[in-house]
Amino acid sequence: MLKECLENVRTGNPLIHNMTNYVTVNDVANVLLACGGAPIMAQEIKEVEDIQTICGGLCINIGTLGMTEAMILAGKKANELGHPVVLDPVGVGASRERSETVERLMKEIHFTVIRGNISEIKAIAMDTNTTRGVDAAEADAVNAGNIESVIGLAKKLAAAHDTVIAITGATDIVADSEKAWIITNGRPIMSSITGSGCMLSAVIAAYVTANPDNVTEAAAAAVMAEGYAGELAEAVTLSRSEGNASFRTHLIDEIYKMDGEALERGAKYEIR
Amino acid sequence: MLKECLENVRTGNPLIHNMTNYVTVNDVANVLLACGGAPIMAQEIKEVEDIQTICGGLCINIGTLGMTEAMILAGKKANELGHPVVLDPVGVGASRERSETVERLMKEIHFTVIRGNISEIKAIAMDTNTTRGVDAAEADAVNAGNIESVIGLAKKLAAAHDTVIAITGATDIVADSEKAWIITNGRPIMSSITGSGCMLSAVIAAYVTANPDNVTEAAAAAVMAEGYAGELAEAVTLSRSEGNASFRTHLIDEIYKMDGEALERGAKYEIR
Amino acid sequence: MLKECLENVRTGNPLIHNMTNYVTVNDVANVLLACGGAPIMAQEIKEVEDIQTICGGLCINIGTLGMTEAMILAGKKANELGHPVVLDPVGVGASRERSETVERLMKEIHFTVIRGNISEIKAIAMDTNTTRGVDAAEADAVNAGNIESVIGLAKKLAAAHDTVIAITGATDIVADSEKAWIITNGRPIMSSITGSGCMLSAVIAAYVTANPDNVTEAAAAAVMAEGYAGELAEAVTLSRSEGNASFRTHLIDEIYKMDGEALERGAKYEIR
Repeated sequence: MLKECLENVRTGNPLIHNMTNYVTVNDVANVLLACGGAPIMAQEIKEVEDIQTICGGLCINIGTLGMTEAMILAGKKANELGHPVVLDPVGVGASRERSETVERLMKEIHFTVIRGNISEIKAIAMDTNTTRGVDAAEADAVNAGNIESVIGLAKKLAAAHDTVIAITGATDIVADSEKAWIITNGRPIMSSITGSGCMLSAVIAAYVTANPDNVTEAAAAAVMAEGYAGELAEAVTLSRSEGNASFRTHLIDEIYKMDGEALERGAKYEIR
Repeated sequence: MLKECLENVRTGNPLIHNMTNYVTVNDVANVLLACGGAPIMAQEIKEVEDIQTICGGLCINIGTLGMTEAMILAGKKANELGHPVVLDPVGVGASRERSETVERLMKEIHFTVIRGNISEIKAIAMDTNTTRGVDAAEADAVNAGNIESVIGLAKKLAAAHDTVIAITGATDIVADSEKAWIITNGRPIMSSITGSGCMLSAVIAAYVTANPDNVTEAAAAAVMAEGYAGELAEAVTLSRSEGNASFRTHLIDEIYKMDGEALERGAKYEIR
Repeated sequence: MLKECLENVRTGNPLIHNMTNYVTVNDVANVLLACGGAPIMAQEIKEVEDIQTICGGLCINIGTLGMTEAMILAGKKANELGHPVVLDPVGVGASRERSETVERLMKEIHFTVIRGNISEIKAIAMDTNTTRGVDAAEADAVNAGNIESVIGLAKKLAAAHDTVIAITGATDIVADSEKAWIITNGRPIMSSITGSGCMLSAVIAAYVTANPDNVTEAAAAAVMAEGYAGELAEAVTLSRSEGNASFRTHLIDEIYKMDGEALERGAKYEIR
């Protein structure tokens, strides 16, 4: 149940090690506190294994490159300790270096969840040769016409890498090899701030760490929690005649204020 | 027209590559989204050319040192592709390293616009031996007594480096070799937050990228847009009995909310 | 007097060099401006001595590792120039690398104030062999039962390192070798955001730089100013039905708005 997923985060207070970019790192730390987790940001190669050991989960975000070796060390340690590991392949496909980085991370580390937008997930499917001739590759947004093929891609990729794939956008898809959650929470204003994706990856890490026996649902719950918070935050922003910077603050606030009942009420999904 | 300058940003949605400091990077990303552009932050030397290729403009900000080689690669690529490049020489003159960095960047890259406060622009004039015995060097603020000499310095520096010079402070001057915009938008509270300068440089990059045939006016429009947003944001801050941190949020909000008519209405300038 | 401590910051406008982590650096810069100081963030080894020379104080925060050599250069220069230096040993004890870093910094630099939570201060006492068999080591929070032993530890550590020790938490202790300020300002919501500790260390640096003859009281005044601001900010947050992200903004706002009379009125302390 979604309610339980959220409450397990608040009671378990999972400490998440974030190796992330310098653009949105402060928002990532605050949103982890907002959802009931706790953040540590460490990237120095000499300490990442020590830090991983005292944490419960790991979130690797390649928004800023240049710490691949430290990421691999932390990821291997997390795998060894049974900590969930989330990958946010920011901008993969935008440069050769990003593609090679993701390919290498996926070879060395087992990821519990991989979250990206449709372009990033397609780039991963292509780079890792999981899929050829993907219909979804034709489009840059999930829509009524291509959703079945996107779901197929997500399940295939999930199966190939023994992971959960979260594709986020106007419609979100969270899939393991067998089952996909189709989620319609969220509002377009979420793309008028930087960091809604980075924050979501960290929140997913907190949710799957606090719900180890229920990883796909936990990831879906995190996606719905942030999406529903976006709806509530937009309402506050409009009621006060504010703009995107205020929306950013309200988004984190709404995640902070959300309880299990609210999430159950606000969640919009179907399972296929 | 100022209105068109703003609207070209909203319709063109220019993607700006920012090589910038870690202090204000999040505000820079959000203000780019607010004004109608889009941000990418990449600094890893192996990818900056790839990233520049998919962008429309580049903003180089030396607030954090240590990426000069990558900046030069990105800047040369931008020059080659005809992308506008903005330089924000943060703190030049405060250390020998900053002066040498700016000198080197200006030797290797052609800048479309250079934006700084009066001290930074004077430091550049001195370091690049563009001007000797500048009267403006006597003062650290533009005022009625020295404004003619500051305008002269700006035009001379613009001519020497085939660029547009934007000197921002209580009074702003945006000049090419022939014409100067004297702008009186803005409020003192803008200097009670970090990042109003860094944000402005990024907004200028978005404006000149979206208005390639009208660079000086576009840079001036960006300066007025942020200055006028500062006036509106101060009013909101005072009406709510808030402080500098709220002002920062309102400043970005007002840029997000501003349309062409509002900018025309709020702009305060003369041309000399 | 506390009032004077605050007013000396507003009139002296101390420029503080911050070598700090990338998670909370923007908040640190804005809170320095809010309290009446001014920030510079520089970490490039080639310029840190130049930058220190134009500043009044230095705040070293080890939240992000990897700049120890530059920190030592800046710290030695600050010592040489008689600038106060504050150490924030973020997460010391969480990894061997952090412990070694702090040990090395404390060997090479004389610190005016060291601020941490009880766990961090205990880790320092252990790592530097200042204290053995600390009773306080048994507990992770200061409470009625252990406060005397924590005060004893703080005074002993202050004496051993000729410094002021600030232990912050639900109850704060600011001690030199002879006298301890026991402070009960602040609210639990302050730990629901990232950065309240980092911000406090920077504010302490501004206060001790502006009050060189009254260092212990100035550090205590800074702790009370932020704690009292936290109380005021919580009230605003609750009155608007907001969450932790808004609280962060209000916290800085309240420091911006606070004057000497307000601090005197709000301060809650005793001296032992």
